[in-house]
Amino acid sequence: MEVPPPLVLKRPLYVPSKTLMGPGPSNCSHRVLEAMSNPVLGHMHPECLQIMDEVKEGIKYIFQTLNDATMCISGAGHSGMEAALCNLIEDGDVVLMGITGVWGHRAGDMARRYGAEVHYVEASFGRALSLDEITFAFEAHRPRVFFITQGDSSTGIIQQYIRELGELCRKYDCFLVVDTVASLGGAEFLMDEWKVDVAYTGSQKSLGGPAGLTPISFSKRALTRIRKRKTKPKVYYFDILLIGQYWGCYGTPRIYHHTISSTLLYGLREALAHFCAVGLKAVVRRHQECSKRLQLGIEELGLEMFVQREDERLPTVNAIKVPFGVDWRKVAEYAMRKYSVEISGGLGPTVEHVFRIGLMGENATVERVDMVLSILNEAIQSSKLGIKTERSKI
Amino acid sequence: MEVPPPLVLKRPLYVPSKTLMGPGPSNCSHRVLEAMSNPVLGHMHPECLQIMDEVKEGIKYIFQTLNDATMCISGAGHSGMEAALCNLIEDGDVVLMGITGVWGHRAGDMARRYGAEVHYVEASFGRALSLDEITFAFEAHRPRVFFITQGDSSTGIIQQYIRELGELCRKYDCFLVVDTVASLGGAEFLMDEWKVDVAYTGSQKSLGGPAGLTPISFSKRALTRIRKRKTKPKVYYFDILLIGQYWGCYGTPRIYHHTISSTLLYGLREALAHFCAVGLKAVVRRHQECSKRLQLGIEELGLEMFVQREDERLPTVNAIKVPFGVDWRKVAEYAMRKYSVEISGGLGPTVEHVFRIGLMGENATVERVDMVLSILNEAIQSSKLGIKTERSKI
Repeated sequence: MEVPPPLVLKRPLYVPSKTLMGPGPSNCSHRVLEAMSNPVLGHMHPECLQIMDEVKEGIKYIFQTLNDATMCISGAGHSGMEAALCNLIEDGDVVLMGITGVWGHRAGDMARRYGAEVHYVEASFGRALSLDEITFAFEAHRPRVFFITQGDSSTGIIQQYIRELGELCRKYDCFLVVDTVASLGGAEFLMDEWKVDVAYTGSQKSLGGPAGLTPISFSKRALTRIRKRKTKPKVYYFDILLIGQYWGCYGTPRIYHHTISSTLLYGLREALAHFCAVGLKAVVRRHQECSKRLQLGIEELGLEMFVQREDERLPTVNAIKVPFGVDWRKVAEYAMRKYSVEISGGLGPTVEHVFRIGLMGENATVERVDMVLSILNEAIQSSKLGIKTERSKI
Repeated sequence: MEVPPPLVLKRPLYVPSKTLMGPGPSNCSHRVLEAMSNPVLGHMHPECLQIMDEVKEGIKYIFQTLNDATMCISGAGHSGMEAALCNLIEDGDVVLMGITGVWGHRAGDMARRYGAEVHYVEASFGRALSLDEITFAFEAHRPRVFFITQGDSSTGIIQQYIRELGELCRKYDCFLVVDTVASLGGAEFLMDEWKVDVAYTGSQKSLGGPAGLTPISFSKRALTRIRKRKTKPKVYYFDILLIGQYWGCYGTPRIYHHTISSTLLYGLREALAHFCAVGLKAVVRRHQECSKRLQLGIEELGLEMFVQREDERLPTVNAIKVPFGVDWRKVAEYAMRKYSVEISGGLGPTVEHVFRIGLMGENATVERVDMVLSILNEAIQSSKLGIKTERSKI
């Protein structure tokens, strides 16, 4: 029995051009896309290692850290979550997950697989966690590791007080892991000043890089803990002592750990270069101003943001309540069909309840905000019209 | 304290063009490189899912399998090794590693971290394993999982008898994992006919795709075992029941598992399309003919292959003994400096002992073989000259 070559692969590759204003990925700039058609390099070639060094410096800047253990995991954003937990957790460790949407639960699933005793502290629906709620949970569970997302893309909630959480974790001899996948570039984040032990982010959101390489950084304190583990981290692929050696983090000779994608490195390098050229503060300001403009427009359209408190709204992924009687699917389909613009529905607790509009990287501009507002309005009106038309048919 | 933007990112990206004739990655074709500058797509967009389906069909063809559980892991080749072991192994399982170079040891490291009891069966230096050696080890250890590389890139050894190993594993109620990272495209591989339970390969070798996505396939038998696990696989990111759901392998609705890199998908899709258009048998024949030509040329140059037996030589990664008195580093440096051609040194047991010349994908052509032979010869002569010159200075 022979398996024949598939007919589908005789057709040419088809890739439509879309404006990606969902929760991510966002569009890559021409500069980033063009970089990725450069010839591949070997994973130990000096020119490749040089680009890795440049990427490392860029990551230090976006996290505002001087941590030696700053690198990328070769995988999607979730591989950053894995690496953070895999390296910190040993069997039986108590881990506390802050929940403002779905990602804390995802991290809980991962941590349990690594043998942790997992507890959750969950915010009220549509709210961030208060310091009191978290402190209370620390008292109850005395966690070894505390995980929180700075920005939860499923709900559009931003968690303030990361600085205070850094203090809290030191007091309780706990390690602070902050997921900045959706928030970085849209909110201030000062890894060292806030005493964050592990931070990772998505390359394909505000950074405007390609998916597939995940920037991550470990504090000296976390690194010391990891060096003192009784057992090896459970996953070779996520072992940051080995990955960091490959990335030249520890002043030791570089040793092959895995074959990094030079293609993705080029893209990420160019995305970081652009981000650095604009400057962190300017990037954050632009994302925040765009979100403010969107929120104002949403109000003017008679719509409502999902997150009630303004200071708890994530600027990058904006959650908007689906008006009564409107089918979010029809709205999203309309926007995609007519304008090739992605407007997303909810996820987890917000499924069916919200639209999610991403204003990230290339799409965080005044023009894009106005465009998406106009399209959203048109799509909602059209979907209502659809209902009326259907009714009149009856 | 503020971390300033790094100066290195103000410089333009520098990517030299090289001919990659080491153990991988090999060069990508213009078609593959160009594909990767296409705009990014969302990981749940129908056009992205369509490309995933096409990639899946291509992988079934290259593995010669009808397995439903055929997909990619979003990571380097090592993530395929991880996924194979992570899904099959439960605490205390006995795992046997076939060793013909470094990769069996690497797999052993991973398996131990997953809680396996690991044993090794090691071939003699420069030899593949015999069926007798393996059967003997099966009798001694009664493994639950047996791992072997079809082609070990560190030694240039190909392991024959995969078909017989399939039979052996069935007899001992054991699962057969075959690493075809370096061999696929250079040697026959019939996953279903040979009763292989898990196979994975590298995208960046004979396939000529980008690194970063790893094709993998699980037999129905392996899948049944995985569904009956007492515990969840230890890594969410490598859980093939979840990844396969995202890849639409099980006839259930597609559920988001992670953000796949659409960029790498485009590249892999185009590499697979080219591979399928040429045809598996023709690809394998070309790789084998190129290797034969290289081996002949090596003999004519008065050099010697590292692997003594012709039928144990891997056609894709060819290991050549470094002649007495020659510094392999100088040879490799000469080839790179003068011709931008990569010739590699050894790895693990072959370090300092061999050159490794990769003839894979774009570089598996008669012209490249003749070119690399001529460069190797010139570089060796030049390095000898260097020694003479240095001596005459004394």
